[in-house]
Amino acid sequence: MADSSWPGCAKSLKGVILDLCGVLYDSGEGDGVAIPGSIEAVKRLKESDLQLRFCTNETQATREKFVAKLQRLGFDISVCEVFPPAPASISVLKERGLRPHLLVHDGLLQEFEAVDKTNPNCVIIADAAENFSYHNLNEAFRVLIGLEKPILFSLGQGRYYKETDGLKLDVGVYMKALEYACDLKAEVIGKPSPTFFQSVLSDMGLKPHEALMIGDDLVNDVGGAQCCGMKGVQVRTGKYRPSDERHPTVIADATVDNLAHAVEVILSQRGLEA
Amino acid sequence: MADSSWPGCAKSLKGVILDLCGVLYDSGEGDGVAIPGSIEAVKRLKESDLQLRFCTNETQATREKFVAKLQRLGFDISVCEVFPPAPASISVLKERGLRPHLLVHDGLLQEFEAVDKTNPNCVIIADAAENFSYHNLNEAFRVLIGLEKPILFSLGQGRYYKETDGLKLDVGVYMKALEYACDLKAEVIGKPSPTFFQSVLSDMGLKPHEALMIGDDLVNDVGGAQCCGMKGVQVRTGKYRPSDERHPTVIADATVDNLAHAVEVILSQRGLEA
Repeated sequence: MADSSWPGCAKSLKGVILDLCGVLYDSGEGDGVAIPGSIEAVKRLKESDLQLRFCTNETQATREKFVAKLQRLGFDISVCEVFPPAPASISVLKERGLRPHLLVHDGLLQEFEAVDKTNPNCVIIADAAENFSYHNLNEAFRVLIGLEKPILFSLGQGRYYKETDGLKLDVGVYMKALEYACDLKAEVIGKPSPTFFQSVLSDMGLKPHEALMIGDDLVNDVGGAQCCGMKGVQVRTGKYRPSDERHPTVIADATVDNLAHAVEVILSQRGLEA
Repeated sequence: MADSSWPGCAKSLKGVILDLCGVLYDSGEGDGVAIPGSIEAVKRLKESDLQLRFCTNETQATREKFVAKLQRLGFDISVCEVFPPAPASISVLKERGLRPHLLVHDGLLQEFEAVDKTNPNCVIIADAAENFSYHNLNEAFRVLIGLEKPILFSLGQGRYYKETDGLKLDVGVYMKALEYACDLKAEVIGKPSPTFFQSVLSDMGLKPHEALMIGDDLVNDVGGAQCCGMKGVQVRTGKYRPSDERHPTVIADATVDNLAHAVEVILSQRGLEA
């Protein structure tokens, strides 16, 4: 019988899902910087018999522009391997016949270019940064309050993130604001939504216990993956904080120094030492 | 024994507390307009043996400027009779030795002129309207997240209000946003906080059962007053909606057409017909 605890579980794995920001690279001015060892770690995973996908809550750019940035940093990544919330939200819109009012970053607008936005019957918010003005938030609110059955989609539910010039409020904060204003509950598209992780597993044709998630966000990456039945490993890079290892409810299956170390352990266990 | 239900309770009353916007006047361009009969109703209360105070969640102007507006509309009101949240918050700051970072309307800044705001150890938010920018909200967030024991005061907790050019998000929405961002619970100063109603009762030297609150907001005026042991009467003016009369948890002691009608009933019961 296979060992179900880390690192024994590595032997029975068929796929690995990686978070991007904080695991492969740190964001900042320009394209940001690759985390030491991560370019080589991605290469080693690709050369192994494991399937590999990238699951991110990034919503400030289209998938194409975002992947181009990662390629410039040196990563061997293609668009079809990357799962951000915006394309997932477009599938939901189609399924349910919804036309969105958008409160998103300018860089994401192109992703929704082909989507019918006339006479909106739902609102989508994402990390809109400077676009989270009083005027724009009032506008989104008025659309919602004017609907018989208001529907709010939030692409992620993060509280805040760090940029070179300081901490910035993330989309979850504005989700809570609109939830209170309209007395409703938003539908989250992105991590830690189980539907979002499931869509990545479906793309690989794997069951949850056959896959492992590696991320720097204990609640959204590790906790979200575990809720789906996957293993969740946290790296001590990106937004990792030492207090994560004493979290009252989410306990990572393993905490490792960085992606390179995680990949080293996984491949060693599988008898594929480099 | 005195009849404790409306209108019998009017006989044993010693004081009346009135909400302002939606009860005395409707806001809008310039000073807004007095609600028919309300100027005369205030005059009749003042000529009676009842004590009279005004309790409001207005925070877009100093108490002096706000009262001057009411006087221009024709109301016989003086500054010492009006209780808005900002002066109450200044008392709290003094008591607890706190220095605030302010996220408020420009019109309210003067109220805090004499308050020490250096090296802030708490944040005060009020209905800041256009000042609720992404930049200003980030700034308030960074002050809070940088404190060992973050304290957030919210002057009111309204969801939204109506102006001539449409619905506008109120302070409660941004309170919820910062609560989520910093994982804390704000302290509300203003209606429906029991402490706020108590401060008005203390000023009159009355016990809760000796006073009656009249307002247009079922939850914040009527419900808040009832939680303190006062009677609460709702007027069918201002933000009143017919659905208020079917509210699942808050039931007004009486619902009357307007302030003039409420005053007519109170004074009739007390044998003081005009």
